[in-house]
Amino acid sequence: MGGNSFGKIFRITTFGESHGPAIGVVIDGCPPNLEIDIDFIQKELNRRKPGQSSIVTQRKEGDIVEILSGVFEGKSTGTPISLLIRNKDQRSKDYSHIKDKYRPSHADFTYSEKYGNRDYRGGGRSSARETASRVAAGAIAKLFLLEKGIHIQAYVSQVGSIFCEFDYKKLDLSQTENNIVRCPDQEVATKMIDYIKEIKKAGDTIGGVVNCVISGCPTGLGSPVFEKLHAELGKAMLSINACKGFEYGSGFNGVSMKGSQHNDAFYNDNGVIKTKTNYSGGIQGGISNGMDIYFRAAFKPVATIIQDQKSVDKDGKSVIVSGKGRHDPCVVPRAVPIVEAMAALVIIDEFLR
Amino acid sequence: MGGNSFGKIFRITTFGESHGPAIGVVIDGCPPNLEIDIDFIQKELNRRKPGQSSIVTQRKEGDIVEILSGVFEGKSTGTPISLLIRNKDQRSKDYSHIKDKYRPSHADFTYSEKYGNRDYRGGGRSSARETASRVAAGAIAKLFLLEKGIHIQAYVSQVGSIFCEFDYKKLDLSQTENNIVRCPDQEVATKMIDYIKEIKKAGDTIGGVVNCVISGCPTGLGSPVFEKLHAELGKAMLSINACKGFEYGSGFNGVSMKGSQHNDAFYNDNGVIKTKTNYSGGIQGGISNGMDIYFRAAFKPVATIIQDQKSVDKDGKSVIVSGKGRHDPCVVPRAVPIVEAMAALVIIDEFLR
Amino acid sequence: MGGNSFGKIFRITTFGESHGPAIGVVIDGCPPNLEIDIDFIQKELNRRKPGQSSIVTQRKEGDIVEILSGVFEGKSTGTPISLLIRNKDQRSKDYSHIKDKYRPSHADFTYSEKYGNRDYRGGGRSSARETASRVAAGAIAKLFLLEKGIHIQAYVSQVGSIFCEFDYKKLDLSQTENNIVRCPDQEVATKMIDYIKEIKKAGDTIGGVVNCVISGCPTGLGSPVFEKLHAELGKAMLSINACKGFEYGSGFNGVSMKGSQHNDAFYNDNGVIKTKTNYSGGIQGGISNGMDIYFRAAFKPVATIIQDQKSVDKDGKSVIVSGKGRHDPCVVPRAVPIVEAMAALVIIDEFLR
Amino acid sequence: MGGNSFGKIFRITTFGESHGPAIGVVIDGCPPNLEIDIDFIQKELNRRKPGQSSIVTQRKEGDIVEILSGVFEGKSTGTPISLLIRNKDQRSKDYSHIKDKYRPSHADFTYSEKYGNRDYRGGGRSSARETASRVAAGAIAKLFLLEKGIHIQAYVSQVGSIFCEFDYKKLDLSQTENNIVRCPDQEVATKMIDYIKEIKKAGDTIGGVVNCVISGCPTGLGSPVFEKLHAELGKAMLSINACKGFEYGSGFNGVSMKGSQHNDAFYNDNGVIKTKTNYSGGIQGGISNGMDIYFRAAFKPVATIIQDQKSVDKDGKSVIVSGKGRHDPCVVPRAVPIVEAMAALVIIDEFLR
Repeated sequence: MGGNSFGKIFRITTFGESHGPAIGVVIDGCPPNLEIDIDFIQKELNRRKPGQSSIVTQRKEGDIVEILSGVFEGKSTGTPISLLIRNKDQRSKDYSHIKDKYRPSHADFTYSEKYGNRDYRGGGRSSARETASRVAAGAIAKLFLLEKGIHIQAYVSQVGSIFCEFDYKKLDLSQTENNIVRCPDQEVATKMIDYIKEIKKAGDTIGGVVNCVISGCPTGLGSPVFEKLHAELGKAMLSINACKGFEYGSGFNGVSMKGSQHNDAFYNDNGVIKTKTNYSGGIQGGISNGMDIYFRAAFKPVATIIQDQKSVDKDGKSVIVSGKGRHDPCVVPRAVPIVEAMAALVIIDEFLR
Repeated sequence: MGGNSFGKIFRITTFGESHGPAIGVVIDGCPPNLEIDIDFIQKELNRRKPGQSSIVTQRKEGDIVEILSGVFEGKSTGTPISLLIRNKDQRSKDYSHIKDKYRPSHADFTYSEKYGNRDYRGGGRSSARETASRVAAGAIAKLFLLEKGIHIQAYVSQVGSIFCEFDYKKLDLSQTENNIVRCPDQEVATKMIDYIKEIKKAGDTIGGVVNCVISGCPTGLGSPVFEKLHAELGKAMLSINACKGFEYGSGFNGVSMKGSQHNDAFYNDNGVIKTKTNYSGGIQGGISNGMDIYFRAAFKPVATIIQDQKSVDKDGKSVIVSGKGRHDPCVVPRAVPIVEAMAALVIIDEFLR
Repeated sequence: MGGNSFGKIFRITTFGESHGPAIGVVIDGCPPNLEIDIDFIQKELNRRKPGQSSIVTQRKEGDIVEILSGVFEGKSTGTPISLLIRNKDQRSKDYSHIKDKYRPSHADFTYSEKYGNRDYRGGGRSSARETASRVAAGAIAKLFLLEKGIHIQAYVSQVGSIFCEFDYKKLDLSQTENNIVRCPDQEVATKMIDYIKEIKKAGDTIGGVVNCVISGCPTGLGSPVFEKLHAELGKAMLSINACKGFEYGSGFNGVSMKGSQHNDAFYNDNGVIKTKTNYSGGIQGGISNGMDIYFRAAFKPVATIIQDQKSVDKDGKSVIVSGKGRHDPCVVPRAVPIVEAMAALVIIDEFLR
Repeated sequence: MGGNSFGKIFRITTFGESHGPAIGVVIDGCPPNLEIDIDFIQKELNRRKPGQSSIVTQRKEGDIVEILSGVFEGKSTGTPISLLIRNKDQRSKDYSHIKDKYRPSHADFTYSEKYGNRDYRGGGRSSARETASRVAAGAIAKLFLLEKGIHIQAYVSQVGSIFCEFDYKKLDLSQTENNIVRCPDQEVATKMIDYIKEIKKAGDTIGGVVNCVISGCPTGLGSPVFEKLHAELGKAMLSINACKGFEYGSGFNGVSMKGSQHNDAFYNDNGVIKTKTNYSGGIQGGISNGMDIYFRAAFKPVATIIQDQKSVDKDGKSVIVSGKGRHDPCVVPRAVPIVEAMAALVIIDEFLR
């Protein structure tokens, strides 16, 4: 039970199932007097929306956001902001073919085990639909952070085995939204898109990596022990559906480096203390040092495929789960705004502590 | 401020600096009537202890644990268990050579920025000394979990570019503690040890990877949204000093797999539902499915090296930080019990929810 | 900021202002598979509703509850239950006469000081309208507790200086809902009603006391230190608008008793350990002992009166706040279901810990 | 389980039993760079200490506090402050006469029911000894608040049926510590002292009331919904052993007042907005308004009496609990510093939010 809230000061609680009347989020702790630009929230939601391009799922979701509370005369009041998104695509279908079957690598089985019930119409709370609530809340966090000069930019760096330049400084991140896969290198993007289309045609799915850069962060965010800034970012990313790994700064590659290479030398840049290299990823001892924070999140291939698969039903009998309908061949293009939203939620929460 | 507690139900709070009178931990929420084997706690602390072998730091730390509360007639009472470890090596030395200097890739700078002060005698709360408190608390968690048939085993899988077999099922994990680097493959272990000795001689440091396997976990641990079991494990690992990355199940490698390969088919094993493969790493939709949980944590090279390094002092002036004294050439051998402790703290907390 | 959540395991978060589009509540942590009787929720809301009788405020509030999530096929699923109540009476009125004035003993001034803004259309979050969300969530808690045999009954024991028998055992609490003031002694009720009508006619208000009895509680609820059961109940009651005091068991009267009188002797009642007297109010050392839990909550006269009052505006200038419109002459009849709801929320949360 | 922490930002966790090796407290969230005057902490502990006068319990407790962490060069560092108090009086006695008996109105029975065990040597965590940890932590909170001009003063206003002037403005609170009962009216104090001596001689106990005034509080502390400032104060007071009731401002007396009398008119006092009366007790809508905050806490007679009492043992058999040894005839003189400490902990926590 529980576990539907995130953050301590800027605390969000999301609710709603993929096939219920609505999903939404309550934000408790948004600072007062922040201008709430509802068009910006909607725009962020549209970046996550199904059906936005030919390489994502074509599931119909309305995703029109309504503000129920916490905003008066265009500004936050300091009271809970409640955002509601009505579900659209919830006509009663015939679910008898999957009702009692456990779809491989979905949450069907674990959910039944934990709760003793299951919303067989879809993933319920395990559906990626829930992330729309995060994006809506994250948009408000972004509005606050932008006022403070903090900018968060995610992008797709890898799809299957196709990847772009590893060093984000050699990429022009402003190009990210110029293609449907959200990779800033247009040439690599084209390859990714072609590959995803091929995967889609085969009824299969493929994984990918989302990178994220946070610039303009002040020093002093995060704590030295359990709530290290990167530990909070890691938890945030790993809480996104299909995320299997997280690394920041030098990450897993840092393992084979020596301390004499890896240590970031401090220098004085016109009165501002900076580091020459940034293997630390902008975080030292769990606390931001003012340099860019950057990290990577790995996403597995989506479990829903348009192929027949062997499985069992709730009584343990062997069954075939037949794949049909719409599916999401690769999750990372739509994961970009979700990664940004979760990063924004972590940073605003630390900022307000 | 804050951030020195971990867990919701089995909640620990650690305290103490590397150069203060003592460190320790208070556990609030330990179930009553658990047999508390103080020898086991001490044995776990000894696995983390400096000076235990030639390839770890030779810093002298007493690490003798005292139980101050919460245990009566050998059993937990349900009240807070307080464990105290007096610091030994705290004679007043001359720190003037580092007092105002920011050591590269240490927390000196970020700490000063955040708190406006700094315990220049050592890392203060950022010192790895703090992890002794975690190991002590984790030992109690382990005692509880062992009673439930849950077993946690970590081991070193990589040092620099030397690594052992990737698949833990092909390793004999019971051999882990038979060598000082804690790698279950004795041949690879020898190579690792030799390499670390070489690194040590050069006054340098090297990174590594710790793998961990949790077996015997029941289904149903974890939550479907923000508190996914792997998100909690990830946060726990990333909160350990020098940890730069976390992956579970297929991890970053899963990115280049197709869904048709990656999906774990369910089958009925004499009445128990299991999966044939386990790319999911024992967790589906954030909830344990009864299969082994396994993950990897990447550790960077330790920042303290015995070499001169360029840096700045608190006034931004260029200085040389001279490396002298004792240092830890590779953190992963001693990280093994810490990884286990943090895993135990996550699992017990989920178990008790 | 913050502070809109209550409970640890059965955790509710309320949102919404009196003059915004809607109010509501998200419950995170409701056990799965509980039958959710929406008619019962609505009935509880109707007990709190304005306009239900001649002695309460005649403000029009719709109070029709909608379930947005967390319930499937009539049962809770274990995911967040979101309940929505649209506001009705929110036509745009002319508020210029009170916009910048601080109404005496309202939250106008403190709110402006804290948040730097104010929803001048009404009390905003400080409005008693917020308590509808509590009643809705409390109704679900009650449904759970009733299944466990725990019964919560509140009643009005005092209005102004008119009070009924102090010992609840000498009253027939089943008569409580038979009169509009909710006092189980029908004769005293008549006096109270007459008095409130008189007060109402004078455009004035009067305070009162609500008593509450919780029967059927198992032993073992509550904790011995900061989270004593009565401390949680006290906080819950004091969080209700206009509540000025709380006492349980012997309460303030116990002050002048001697220990030899006040101590509750244990005895064995056919295998169940009970106490002969119950000055402890069913709670010893912060933990329930299986006897009835009973307490009293004092409510001040409502601040809104239909009389002219001296005050200042936001610039500190002297102004007259003119009383007009509808007002609530006495808050206690409608406080009865709110007290019950808050008690239910405390008890379910302890039950589930 | 749990429940041994208090506060959100300035968060304390206490530990230790009356008959274990030590008690203590960890403070997580103390702001850095606060001067920590250890003599002041000790002085506060001495005000709570048994044996300080002829009218309190003569139990021997050392109460010498040691700082284990979080303070460097006389100032707080921002890391957890751990305070340790070794127990003195813990020689092994013969407890066989009470081991299995449930003392009336003690926590023996409820404790056994909840935890399935019991520290029969004393009250364990239910012992008032635990409050020493609160006083130590509260002393640090007071040091912070004094720097901000916030002053907290508690005093005894009632013992049994003997009480002093109700309105604290008519008392000279600076006289409080001039007599052993801590009542600012010296004449009434004399009567109280005589009465307590009489009670003590009879082996009996008597209750009392502690009042508290917080002056110098800024506007804006507290929240409008569940975490109203007075709700937090109420919980804090009710968490003190033997506390049975709490009221603030007009309290239970406010019940019989009319709104037209009770409303506090605002006026402009040389640019500061104040209220003419202060029935609100310095808190409106849950938020401080800058006026004095004042409240009252009722304490029952202590359960330990030097008289034989009927009870049952753990098997439900009738037994006599014989009263012998030392006892505390009236808890309120020693409750004064505890009330102040808990008030300080509430106020600092709100201040830092």
